[in-house]
Amino acid sequence: MAADGDNRFRVGLLGHGTVGAAFADLLPRHADRIARITGLRPELSGVLTRSRGSFEEILAGSDLIVELIGGIDPAREYLLTAMRAGKHIVTANKQLLSHHGEELWEEARVRGVQLRFEGAVAGVVPVIRVLQESLAGATIDRVHGIVNGTTNFILTEMARTGEPFAGALAEAQRLGYAEADPTEDVNGKDAAAKMAIIARLAFETPVHIDQVRYEGIEHIQPDDLEYARDFGLGLKLIGTAERVGDGGLSVSVYPAFLYPGHPLASVNGPFNAVTVESEAITEITMSGPGAGGPQTASAVLGDVISAMIPPASTPPATESLDIVGDVTSSFYLYLEVADEPGVLARVADVLARQQVSVKSVLQKGLDDQARLVMVVHPVLESRFFAAMREIAALSAMRAAPRAIRVIEEEFV
Amino acid sequence: MAADGDNRFRVGLLGHGTVGAAFADLLPRHADRIARITGLRPELSGVLTRSRGSFEEILAGSDLIVELIGGIDPAREYLLTAMRAGKHIVTANKQLLSHHGEELWEEARVRGVQLRFEGAVAGVVPVIRVLQESLAGATIDRVHGIVNGTTNFILTEMARTGEPFAGALAEAQRLGYAEADPTEDVNGKDAAAKMAIIARLAFETPVHIDQVRYEGIEHIQPDDLEYARDFGLGLKLIGTAERVGDGGLSVSVYPAFLYPGHPLASVNGPFNAVTVESEAITEITMSGPGAGGPQTASAVLGDVISAMIPPASTPPATESLDIVGDVTSSFYLYLEVADEPGVLARVADVLARQQVSVKSVLQKGLDDQARLVMVVHPVLESRFFAAMREIAALSAMRAAPRAIRVIEEEFV
Repeated sequence: MAADGDNRFRVGLLGHGTVGAAFADLLPRHADRIARITGLRPELSGVLTRSRGSFEEILAGSDLIVELIGGIDPAREYLLTAMRAGKHIVTANKQLLSHHGEELWEEARVRGVQLRFEGAVAGVVPVIRVLQESLAGATIDRVHGIVNGTTNFILTEMARTGEPFAGALAEAQRLGYAEADPTEDVNGKDAAAKMAIIARLAFETPVHIDQVRYEGIEHIQPDDLEYARDFGLGLKLIGTAERVGDGGLSVSVYPAFLYPGHPLASVNGPFNAVTVESEAITEITMSGPGAGGPQTASAVLGDVISAMIPPASTPPATESLDIVGDVTSSFYLYLEVADEPGVLARVADVLARQQVSVKSVLQKGLDDQARLVMVVHPVLESRFFAAMREIAALSAMRAAPRAIRVIEEEFV
Repeated sequence: MAADGDNRFRVGLLGHGTVGAAFADLLPRHADRIARITGLRPELSGVLTRSRGSFEEILAGSDLIVELIGGIDPAREYLLTAMRAGKHIVTANKQLLSHHGEELWEEARVRGVQLRFEGAVAGVVPVIRVLQESLAGATIDRVHGIVNGTTNFILTEMARTGEPFAGALAEAQRLGYAEADPTEDVNGKDAAAKMAIIARLAFETPVHIDQVRYEGIEHIQPDDLEYARDFGLGLKLIGTAERVGDGGLSVSVYPAFLYPGHPLASVNGPFNAVTVESEAITEITMSGPGAGGPQTASAVLGDVISAMIPPASTPPATESLDIVGDVTSSFYLYLEVADEPGVLARVADVLARQQVSVKSVLQKGLDDQARLVMVVHPVLESRFFAAMREIAALSAMRAAPRAIRVIEEEFV
């Protein structure tokens, strides 16, 4: 693929917005690693922005074109031209694929080039690759997705604070989770474009965005969230693509309530998630950040690497990190102690000397004993176990202490 | 790859246990679809069981070997021999890869054959493919996994019922979620083997199962689950692989508590899930059934298809389902009505005439009005909206009715 017998792989970048700039930053930082995996060293051969660069020059000097301009024109013409010139394509353009996907996929087939688009749907959540590759052998019955992070953030905020839609939208804009013009996010159209692409892959049926019924969240009342909670229900903007009857396919985006056990019910904040159901596999769910420059750029880079080589089915030549034993953990600690003055002080003294810091503690009386249950902040495991051995030796102990690790992070 | 100029792709199957039998059933049912995707028609060229078949004959007559015997010998020798003969390999053998992975991967590299093993870790959850392909461009900081469905089921049962370990294990055995000899599941060794493979891929560092520290769940007391709930914590058997300090890697399996917002906290029952953290991508989580014959066989089949061709980056020739509009949904319905006798009866009458069946209903007084909130069972949307238009026209209505879809399934 490389220009002149060397091992370069030349990547032309169209667009230098949030994702484009993040990609231009990411590529050189990973060039060594990618060269190790693929045998080819990727480099940016040119960047086309609104004011600078020539598409024709970039095309001539590239093995692969990354399209991050968005919108239909001129992106469509650029991609068709690039494929006719035999170049591989990686794009994150959901509008283009949901309107003109069939034309572009057909061109890729005819020209024998790769057209990859993981970044077009759900950011770094690998829904495209999993639908096309992992599930190539499964008959899919239904896909449910939370595929718009802006609306999921707004609904999470409305449920958490009781605020109306307008206030939660303003908060989303303040935090950068909603754009200045959020129309296509909140009215469901952005999610509809992504569901058209997902449905196309899951059901091998051409789906145009105009065939997706959609509705937004602008009309949702805080009251509805509150009353529905009495039934155990939480609200999400849900995209659905499912087989219907004999030979039918329904694709839609609606606000919908979920019962608490549903795999999408616990997806909060600006996250995206997709659940794929099939008789053979029951269901699988994938979730992660749905947008953001670095995240989407990372999905684009994964596609670029895949286009550089057929995927390595064996891990590349190895690094060699040292395997270490003693790490930092948070712990839950359960003690049965004599119910007498000074016991907590003695336990606390041992912990302090080993630099173990208590996060929460709970003491419950129980006849002449007490149960002392606590969670401690992250500490080197060797220190924690040293403290625990000392505590076990205290005269006030009535049973062996019990310790269990706590995963410390508290997520959104 | 095919035998004699035709378009057959011959798959030799070693092992005919739960997964092997499910695979032998799955392959012919999907042969047409796979031929459409790949241009080659897969067929079973032979099956080796304990009592029947010859490895040498199957090898000679196959393009690809699927190994589902499990254990180290003779699986290791079979796979080395097959790769030396230039055959691709698909295996679900976690013991073998966690002990002899480097030897096998090296042989695959030297021979230029594919060695795929999605089924070895977390069943149909596509963690191997996502680590190797989607995240090839990301520097991974940490992986957390629930990679043993038996222990996750037992811990879910213990938390739900307050039963001790032994009772929950017996229940798992009764339901087929635990084997007659559950030792390596409950003592953490099965999870340790899977974490060794995950860590190998995520950190490009050779990891042998003996380098994974692990602990099981046999000693967990119902008391601990109950007290920890006071802190909002839920218990899982968690595999962790993470970078430590400068150039270190820690791989372990321990019971650990999670705060409710953690992406793994809501993974219940016999499910598996893996969360991958990286600065660039924040984190992604994948979840699904971790075992089961048809599920693991489906992961194996996905690998077989990938080995048949470099993954199609463009969707295959299309099916043509009809895009349909009117589907069945469950709904939440919010009504503001005059607080007078007979209103509920009139609403119920409209619903009954449109064959809309009420699942839950809640009425709250509010000055001289009442709020009537209900969830209805799944019904054709056109019927529901017809009922809603009739209800809107009732004289007792004090505001426009509001309806929101409810995703009906209640998951484990």
